[in-house]
Amino acid sequence: MSTLAIATAKEVFDLLHDDLRAIEREFGAYAVSSVAAITEISSYLREGGGKRLRPSLLLLSARAQNYSGHGMIRLGAVVEMVHTATLVHDDIIDAADTRRGRPSANTTWGNGKCVLAGDWLYMQAFRVALEERNFRILDLLIGLTQQMVEGELLQMEKLGFCIAESDYNTLIYRKTACLFEVSMRLGAVLAGIPKSHTNGHSSSATPSETEDHMGEYGRALGMAFQIVDDVLDLTASEEVLGKPVASDLREGKATLAVIHALEHGSEEDRQAIRTVLEDRDFHRVTHAQILGILKNHGSIEYAMNIALEYAETARNALSFLPDSDYKRALLWVPDFVVARDR
Amino acid sequence: MSTLAIATAKEVFDLLHDDLRAIEREFGAYAVSSVAAITEISSYLREGGGKRLRPSLLLLSARAQNYSGHGMIRLGAVVEMVHTATLVHDDIIDAADTRRGRPSANTTWGNGKCVLAGDWLYMQAFRVALEERNFRILDLLIGLTQQMVEGELLQMEKLGFCIAESDYNTLIYRKTACLFEVSMRLGAVLAGIPKSHTNGHSSSATPSETEDHMGEYGRALGMAFQIVDDVLDLTASEEVLGKPVASDLREGKATLAVIHALEHGSEEDRQAIRTVLEDRDFHRVTHAQILGILKNHGSIEYAMNIALEYAETARNALSFLPDSDYKRALLWVPDFVVARDR
Repeated sequence: MSTLAIATAKEVFDLLHDDLRAIEREFGAYAVSSVAAITEISSYLREGGGKRLRPSLLLLSARAQNYSGHGMIRLGAVVEMVHTATLVHDDIIDAADTRRGRPSANTTWGNGKCVLAGDWLYMQAFRVALEERNFRILDLLIGLTQQMVEGELLQMEKLGFCIAESDYNTLIYRKTACLFEVSMRLGAVLAGIPKSHTNGHSSSATPSETEDHMGEYGRALGMAFQIVDDVLDLTASEEVLGKPVASDLREGKATLAVIHALEHGSEEDRQAIRTVLEDRDFHRVTHAQILGILKNHGSIEYAMNIALEYAETARNALSFLPDSDYKRALLWVPDFVVARDR
Repeated sequence: MSTLAIATAKEVFDLLHDDLRAIEREFGAYAVSSVAAITEISSYLREGGGKRLRPSLLLLSARAQNYSGHGMIRLGAVVEMVHTATLVHDDIIDAADTRRGRPSANTTWGNGKCVLAGDWLYMQAFRVALEERNFRILDLLIGLTQQMVEGELLQMEKLGFCIAESDYNTLIYRKTACLFEVSMRLGAVLAGIPKSHTNGHSSSATPSETEDHMGEYGRALGMAFQIVDDVLDLTASEEVLGKPVASDLREGKATLAVIHALEHGSEEDRQAIRTVLEDRDFHRVTHAQILGILKNHGSIEYAMNIALEYAETARNALSFLPDSDYKRALLWVPDFVVARDR
C-alpha cells in the first residue's frame, strides 16, 4: 500500500468543495415542480442539510479513477434525492416528529402530501438518472431502492423482538451500506464508460472488477458507519449527539452490542433487555442498567471491533487504485467514520 | 373509415383472453418478494381484481400493429403494477376504508407497510420494464408516474373549492387519461422496434407519428372514461354502482357537471353547491337538491356531450390503422365506455 499524507476532514472537504457546490445547485434545480407543494417540501428537505456523504463517496470514486465529467454531479444529486425520498417515507412510517433537529416534513405537511412528495423525489431521481442513457446505472439505482424498501419492511417486522446477528447485518446492509455501495459503484460505472460511448448506450449487465472493488469498499464502509451509529446511540450523551440517546431501544430495535449481550448475558440480563424492547421505554429497566449489562459483557467493544474490521476491509478493497489525493481521502474515511463521537 | 363488424364486450374479451391470462401469471410472478409482507399485500391487491383496462389497451395497441412478442405481456403487467401502486398510496392519502368492495390494504396492514408496499410496486414495475432495455419505455413510464403523483397533489390542493373546467381537465388527465395514453404509446413503441433491435438499445427520445396517434386515442379515451365515471358518481343508484353515490362531493371534489352548474346556475344554486363542497356531506343541502340544479341547467347532458366528443376524437385518431379485429375492438371501446351505466 502507498505511503499516505495524513488527510483531515478539512482537506477532504476542500478536495470536493467545488463538486459538492455543483451538486447542491443541481439538486436545487431538480427539486422544482409545477406543483407548489412538491417544490416547498423538497426545498425544505434539501435545506435541512445532512452530511452529503453519499454524493461525496460517488465523487471520490469517480475522481479516484480519473473521471471528471458532469455525470458525477448529476448522479451525486440523484443519490442524495433517493436518500431524501427514503427519509421522507421513513418519517411517515416512524411517525417521527423531528429530523435533523427540525420538525419532520410530515408534521408540517401531513402524511398524505409527504407520501406523494417522497414518490415524486424517487421518480425525479430516476428521471434525472435516465438522462445518462446507461442501463447499468438504472439497474443499480432501481435495484438499490427496492432493497432499501424491503429492508425497512423487514425492520418493521422485527421491532420489539430479539434478533440474530445475521438479521442485524441484513438490516443495516439494506438501511445504509447498500446506498454507500451503489454510490461507489456509480462512480466506477461513470469512469468505466469508454470515451466513444459518452452519448451511447453502454449497458453491460455484469459489473466490471473495478466496480466490484469500489462496491466492496462502499459496502464495508456503510456497515462500519451504521454499527458505529448504533453504538453511539447507546453510549453518547444527548449533548454530544444532538438528539435523544437510546432511541433505537425506545423504538424496539436491537442493535449489535445489544444482540451480543443477549447472546452472552445471564438469563437475568436477557430478561432486562427483552423488557426494554417490549416496553419501548426505560420505566421498568433503566438506560443505566442496560449500559451496565453491555459493559459487563464487553458488548460495546465487540461491536466496535467489528466496525474496525469493516473499516479495514474497506481500505483493503482499494489496493488496486493508483495513488492520488482522492484515493488518500477514501483511505481516510473509514478511520474517520469509526473514530467519530457523533 | 372501414366498415365494422359489431363488436361486443364478449368478443373483445375473447380476443384478449389468452394474453390477459398471461399478464395475470406474469403479474403474479413479479409480485413476489423475499419479504413476506410485500408478497401478502401485493397478492391481496392483485386478487382484488379490477378491469385490467390498461393492459387491455396496451395489448390492443400492440396487436393492431401486428406485434405479438412477449414485451406486451411484460409491459401489460408493468402498467397494472404502476396502477396498483398509485391506488395503494391514494388509499393512504384518502384514508379510504374500502377499495373495490373489500377492506383497503391500509386498514389491514396499516399506513406504514402500505407506503412501503406502494414504493416496492413502483420499483418492481420499473425493474421489469428495464428488462426491455429500451429508454423510450422508461421515459414514458417514469414521466407518467411523476405526472400522476403531481396530479394527486394538485387534487389535494383543490379539495373543497370550486374549480375551473381547465383545472378539472388537468386533474382527470393526470389521474386517468395519462396512464391510458402511456399504455397505448407503449404498444406502439413495442410494435415500432425494428426486428434487428429485439435485444438492442433503441432509444429515440422523440415519439413516432404512429405512437402519437395511439397516444391521442388513449388520452381522449381516458378523458371520456373519467368524465363518465364522474357523471355516474352523481347520477347512478348505489345498487347499480356498487358503492356509495356522490362520493366525489362528499370528498369535496367538483366534477364536470357540477362545474357547469356553478358557471351557469343562479347565485342560490352556486351557494348550494359551495355548501356541499365545504361541508363534504348532504346535511344542509341534499343530494336530490344538487341533482335538481344539475338537471335545470342541463349540466349532466353537457358533461356527457363532452365525453362523446372525446370518444369521437379517440376513434378518429385510429384512421391510419389497417383494418383488423384489434382495430375494430379499439373502435368499439369508446362507445362502450360512454354507454356504460356503472
